[in-house]
Amino acid sequence: MAKQPTLTDVARAAGVSRSTAARALSGSGYVAKAKRELIEAQANGLGYRASAIARTLRTRRSHTVGILIADITNPIFPRIVRGADEVLTGEGMTLLLCNTDQEPERQASFTQVMIERMADGLILVSQSIRPELVDLLRRGPPIVLVNRTPEPGAFDYVGPDNAQGIDALIEHLTNHGHRRLGFIRGPRNSSTACERYDRFVRRMGELALPLPRSAIFDGDYSPESGRAAADAMLNLPATERPTAILAANDFVALGLIDRARELGFAIPQDLSVTGFDDAFGEAAWHRVFPDAPRMTTVGQPRREIGRQAANLLLDRLADTSRAPTKIIVPVSFIQGTTTAALAPQPSLPSPRRRRGRTM
Amino acid sequence: MAKQPTLTDVARAAGVSRSTAARALSGSGYVAKAKRELIEAQANGLGYRASAIARTLRTRRSHTVGILIADITNPIFPRIVRGADEVLTGEGMTLLLCNTDQEPERQASFTQVMIERMADGLILVSQSIRPELVDLLRRGPPIVLVNRTPEPGAFDYVGPDNAQGIDALIEHLTNHGHRRLGFIRGPRNSSTACERYDRFVRRMGELALPLPRSAIFDGDYSPESGRAAADAMLNLPATERPTAILAANDFVALGLIDRARELGFAIPQDLSVTGFDDAFGEAAWHRVFPDAPRMTTVGQPRREIGRQAANLLLDRLADTSRAPTKIIVPVSFIQGTTTAALAPQPSLPSPRRRRGRTM
Repeated sequence: MAKQPTLTDVARAAGVSRSTAARALSGSGYVAKAKRELIEAQANGLGYRASAIARTLRTRRSHTVGILIADITNPIFPRIVRGADEVLTGEGMTLLLCNTDQEPERQASFTQVMIERMADGLILVSQSIRPELVDLLRRGPPIVLVNRTPEPGAFDYVGPDNAQGIDALIEHLTNHGHRRLGFIRGPRNSSTACERYDRFVRRMGELALPLPRSAIFDGDYSPESGRAAADAMLNLPATERPTAILAANDFVALGLIDRARELGFAIPQDLSVTGFDDAFGEAAWHRVFPDAPRMTTVGQPRREIGRQAANLLLDRLADTSRAPTKIIVPVSFIQGTTTAALAPQPSLPSPRRRRGRTM
Repeated sequence: MAKQPTLTDVARAAGVSRSTAARALSGSGYVAKAKRELIEAQANGLGYRASAIARTLRTRRSHTVGILIADITNPIFPRIVRGADEVLTGEGMTLLLCNTDQEPERQASFTQVMIERMADGLILVSQSIRPELVDLLRRGPPIVLVNRTPEPGAFDYVGPDNAQGIDALIEHLTNHGHRRLGFIRGPRNSSTACERYDRFVRRMGELALPLPRSAIFDGDYSPESGRAAADAMLNLPATERPTAILAANDFVALGLIDRARELGFAIPQDLSVTGFDDAFGEAAWHRVFPDAPRMTTVGQPRREIGRQAANLLLDRLADTSRAPTKIIVPVSFIQGTTTAALAPQPSLPSPRRRRGRTM
């Protein structure tokens, strides 16, 4: 392997001491102009590059930004990263990613690595932030939160308009005759999940729709949560059972559909289901296969969210004293095949006990 | 913001000079045992943490590994990252990702950042490596290549068994009566694409199947490449036109299907199409919607590939002198809805000029 030239090589070539070469190349002390130019010429000739670490220690700017994502295998995250990457790469910065799986130890160790290696800033995507991490974050570089805010107003923030999305889903379902709506609530430590839940409760009240305690299921963001909700809600008496259920996200909705079909409910004929996030299915796939099953859900402009987060961070680096900014981006309703008009229910029949192929 | 204690704070608390404190805490020079213990106690009491950068400069081990991925929005990559992450996190290492979009400048700048910040190793996933980058890589830390090898045998390597996958696709198609097979070749600078193409040509020869020049289309990995192939191949006379086309990957296959349907070919009735990589559709989705359209394709054990890559890197760190290792992991054939038995063609009819809904 070719060896990179060292400071000692440069000093030897220029006929000066190592410490003189170091002073000349780092600008950290006086070296006569002629001697400095000789040392620089030798350094260039040898292809010597001052260590980036040494340079960072000197300038306190590393031109790197760290981004924590909650789960790299959840398809909503890569396009957020892509958007941030486009903006930051355009500014000559390198984006370093870390997949945390929401584990506090991994959040902390990546954050520590970024602080110690002096990243210029951090972008945290969908991170549930524990109190102990908040302390660590306050000691670190500027931060932008994406899709989750632990203390509203304390950090720069970009996220989707969850209220708009919930309103659109409720409007779609009520326009199709549904009045008994169920809701599967996401994790309580997720601000996004709380926003969606709060808006659902509020909007149901505004529309004077019934909202018994049994219409709310306390879940998380997993398919298992959707399956458990199906067991709880679909075994209710027919007069109480929701005819449509809004799930906390698409993964929950998928588990709900899976279990509902096992229980004999045809989707969407016997039960309408909505997700959130548009996690499944490429737009290109649905254009080529327009009849493929698709989740009725809410899409986020992920690339735009990533771009906005990067821009907020760049603004913050330029002005560390400005007040925290909050950016809410509009979302879009996606009509899929998991919702349908409420079937006429003259005698409120129990669900068909058939399995399988209904879509 | 809380200020981290500095070396000066520790020195003051212990009543010693800053340089003595530095020697004691870094182990870089002699300090009497009693004094060292006092300094260490004060450092612990204050919560002083030696800079990771200083520690790295001293130990030459940073406990970070860099991973370059070609395109974070291509769903085949996240699970490879996940697998590598599992293994490395288990060893107390932090995995830093970079999305390169295959741009040489971004490959080079991330690699440079990793070299300068002294990553212990690098994992390169599906990177087409330009000659100038090879020089940079040789100066850097140990490297494992995944799914693409620029100089076979020069680096540790993990990749899927492309030959096995091509054999399985050809067997599936010939078992369904197809004999005129077309092939859309991926980019020539991709070793994976070359492996798939070479095997296709060889296997067709072994089976004594016809392989006119018109049955090969020189493409890349994009949907546009599939569309262009459809225009070239499907306008051939019916006696020459392939009845089944193997695409370089799933994105190419999707473009091919899209354009073929525009040209009036029903898929799979008039034309069978196969992809490679299983990029579309979650397994969970297909379990819940068993009748959903699905690509006939070849799946890679992505998580396993990621785990193997991380293990190879750890082996390399333990023994930098061992010969490069090549690991080929088995793939799996996935029966989808884009292939079907060759329709009886007594009079070799021209394709139906209908559009649209055939799946």
